[in-house]
Amino acid sequence: MTRVTCIAPVNIAVIKYWGKRNETLILPLNDSISTTLCTHDLCAKTSVMASPEFTEDRIWLNGREESIKNPRLKNCLLQIRRVARDQTPNVIPESWHVHICSENNFPTAAGLASSAAGYACLVATLAQLYGVSGDVSAIARQGSGSACRSMLGGFVRWHKGVEESGSDSIATQIAPASHWPELRILVLVVSDHKKKTSSTIGMQNSVATSELLNYRAHQVVPGRVKKMEKAIMEKDFTQFAEITMRDSNQFHAVALDTYPPAVYMNDTSHSIVNLIHKFNAAHGQIKVAYTFDAGPNACLYMLESEVPEVVGLIDWAFPAKDMKINVLRGLQTERNVPKESLTGKLEMQPLSAGMLQYLILTKVGDGPQKLEGDFVHLLDKSGQPVKKA
Amino acid sequence: MTRVTCIAPVNIAVIKYWGKRNETLILPLNDSISTTLCTHDLCAKTSVMASPEFTEDRIWLNGREESIKNPRLKNCLLQIRRVARDQTPNVIPESWHVHICSENNFPTAAGLASSAAGYACLVATLAQLYGVSGDVSAIARQGSGSACRSMLGGFVRWHKGVEESGSDSIATQIAPASHWPELRILVLVVSDHKKKTSSTIGMQNSVATSELLNYRAHQVVPGRVKKMEKAIMEKDFTQFAEITMRDSNQFHAVALDTYPPAVYMNDTSHSIVNLIHKFNAAHGQIKVAYTFDAGPNACLYMLESEVPEVVGLIDWAFPAKDMKINVLRGLQTERNVPKESLTGKLEMQPLSAGMLQYLILTKVGDGPQKLEGDFVHLLDKSGQPVKKA
Repeated sequence: MTRVTCIAPVNIAVIKYWGKRNETLILPLNDSISTTLCTHDLCAKTSVMASPEFTEDRIWLNGREESIKNPRLKNCLLQIRRVARDQTPNVIPESWHVHICSENNFPTAAGLASSAAGYACLVATLAQLYGVSGDVSAIARQGSGSACRSMLGGFVRWHKGVEESGSDSIATQIAPASHWPELRILVLVVSDHKKKTSSTIGMQNSVATSELLNYRAHQVVPGRVKKMEKAIMEKDFTQFAEITMRDSNQFHAVALDTYPPAVYMNDTSHSIVNLIHKFNAAHGQIKVAYTFDAGPNACLYMLESEVPEVVGLIDWAFPAKDMKINVLRGLQTERNVPKESLTGKLEMQPLSAGMLQYLILTKVGDGPQKLEGDFVHLLDKSGQPVKKA
Repeated sequence: MTRVTCIAPVNIAVIKYWGKRNETLILPLNDSISTTLCTHDLCAKTSVMASPEFTEDRIWLNGREESIKNPRLKNCLLQIRRVARDQTPNVIPESWHVHICSENNFPTAAGLASSAAGYACLVATLAQLYGVSGDVSAIARQGSGSACRSMLGGFVRWHKGVEESGSDSIATQIAPASHWPELRILVLVVSDHKKKTSSTIGMQNSVATSELLNYRAHQVVPGRVKKMEKAIMEKDFTQFAEITMRDSNQFHAVALDTYPPAVYMNDTSHSIVNLIHKFNAAHGQIKVAYTFDAGPNACLYMLESEVPEVVGLIDWAFPAKDMKINVLRGLQTERNVPKESLTGKLEMQPLSAGMLQYLILTKVGDGPQKLEGDFVHLLDKSGQPVKKA
């Protein structure tokens, strides 16, 4: 009986992944770049246990047992076992089944690419269990494309690769989290009632119908990836921020160019975009960048020194429902009520209350980590999910 | 003393104009195609009078005197006078000034490209006054790009042209209104509180910053223009509708790819898009097409036979504020309350009441027309705006 528990981070792309060239292997049309968020504030946690007593592989996700027959899940398990057979045949006998239990420490409703953290955590935990070493980001990629970026901390590049097998479509670290410790990420969780378009479906439709997608993937992104790597290495926030905003907009443009269109941002999202551009213009420099994934929530990038002003600005522009300040999870901060000399320049009025659900403040962090101790596991010693108090 | 009054139509592009290659001459990056709407339901009306008594050129727009120094306005006047000097030097002496009075028969707030109808009407009326003949769409174009398309009825193509002077950037008729009399246009005027981004500014920003715009203009639009002309000539509604929707989406995609992004559609606009795709899917064929200009209002194209079902559908999905049916201007129609067998397939609930202001139902119509009679004019015999009762 062996039991292993890991946590793995969420990542937020600054150069977006949108479109696969191979659906089965999950090979992307273009490179992408992300920052890995600190697991203190947002993470997936997975416990895996192998035992000769288990009669089948089983999985529990966020408290509910799910089918192990999900092809992406099965594939990750299969591939880790295949590597283990070559590398570490004596660690876990091939005939043993596994129990997997996984959960996020943030609501799935937050729309924060929970599948990326989830698959990264699954693969990292299985790799620990089977004693597999070396790069397993290509296995995580086959669970959920962007999961490969959550296998590393700091600033991460997912290379599209050129091999048909996908063996070179892996994640590499541009710089560790410690390279740019001043960077902060403020997530604005937007209220939304719209039924979500799955990003898998939206992406497939874009590849099939958007004439702009190929141009973006092949003609625009390569240049942006180079500039973004340079901006990160030089800690050039202005460049970092501008490319991030442009690339978020272009990703949503391509989604809109899809037939039928895939629309992820809503009116509140666009109000956030407008606010950030007006705020930067009022300061005469780019102090904040926004980026949006396949959902209405904004991720704002800024330097630590700007956080109190920006959180105060958000409270002003997007007042909480009871007119108190917005709930802030993660890192805590002071809030500076914006001066009239600033708000006068924004050319906008505060929106009606309740457009945001809450905020999460975090920073760039490390990759997956193995947890030690008797009380860290989500599975008990018999391999059943631990009952919560 | 000579007094002339004309009306001119609104046009709705099905292949969009977005981006100039020459700001002064208003030369577009790509060809565009539009339908001209019937002037019974929507039009601009302009009276022009020339007199030796007038001490200066003056203009009144929608009841208010405006500066004649607007460069686009001055330019239209200058060019008509230049043509007149060559063609018809004896009709109006060069030293006479003109008074111009213009209004729309629809609220400007409807966001229906009122400047296109307005400049078309101005140039058509001036051409009548000065007795100028031949194509003057290139002059209207210099007032407002898409105004050149309102100089003709039916289905109209604005050729981007290749000459530096812009002399070949003119509008031509693909087919008259009588070619496809079954076509109907239903305008949904959407409630919106957002400050509008001017399309002139948005377009300039797109040309300066969108990497996707050039690809669209040079690689995508030429093929669409060919297919659209063919669809119109063959009265192939399916093709006409699909290209219309794809091109509307791509125009808004390019606007979103702009830095800062130009966002014209709002959540209600996107709900309309979603409804139309679901409605078409439920029927297994494209019965309705949407298109959006630089604002949140939808223009729906359909055949006459579909109008009662579509208006009923709109009443269901976008109930009026007092839960009565939506106000309908223009052509009148029956409304078929949608069957549950249909609404069950739409995968959506009706939106909260009051998302639409009103509807306008119209058809394809003719170009500018000169009005005859003593009571048609907006200027009295002394050249002052007629006072309304």
